[in-house]
Amino acid sequence: MDPGLAGRLKTTADGLLPAIVQEAGTGRVLMLAWMDEAALAYTLGTRRGTYWSRSRGEYWVKGMTSGHYQRVEHLALDCDRDTVLLTVTQTGAACHTGAHSCFDVEPLL
Amino acid sequence: MDPGLAGRLKTTADGLLPAIVQEAGTGRVLMLAWMDEAALAYTLGTRRGTYWSRSRGEYWVKGMTSGHYQRVEHLALDCDRDTVLLTVTQTGAACHTGAHSCFDVEPLL
Repeated sequence: MDPGLAGRLKTTADGLLPAIVQEAGTGRVLMLAWMDEAALAYTLGTRRGTYWSRSRGEYWVKGMTSGHYQRVEHLALDCDRDTVLLTVTQTGAACHTGAHSCFDVEPLL
Repeated sequence: MDPGLAGRLKTTADGLLPAIVQEAGTGRVLMLAWMDEAALAYTLGTRRGTYWSRSRGEYWVKGMTSGHYQRVEHLALDCDRDTVLLTVTQTGAACHTGAHSCFDVEPLL
């Protein structure tokens, strides 16, 4: 990762950025996860979606347990550099419920 | 808003949920904003994208100043009920820079 990049990120007070994961090809939004600088650097270096679990307090490479890896095709910061958008090729289901997208579960409108 | 819904939301410590805004039709991810319960209820009731500004400490109806309103076509919670996904018809640019999407500005991969 560009050494200058870390200093330009605008993280939350606990050092995190929300990371939106969108599926290449379909454009479906699959999930939202969280990254710190290290997870972002690892994702950029390996092209595997890698996040920080707020509930477990640990890093996770998506798919390491489930086999449902994410190959990162594109990655962008937003205009404020406080959010990440990843475009991925998703193996299997993105959601731990087995749904393809985490947003398939509870529509309100 | 269903009175039972508020109690089921899993907000951050400061009472917020990240809200991903996706464009109807194109599927492009336009921006990420933040909602508290009131912003979510207002959005559900009016179908206008309405958020909480963390930097300004106030509510904002997207487009109230710029004219770049968002008509909300669909809205869903994710499986953990800690993130909102809105599908919107966007008038004009979503980004304050004038870009159509906030994620057009800084690609990293």
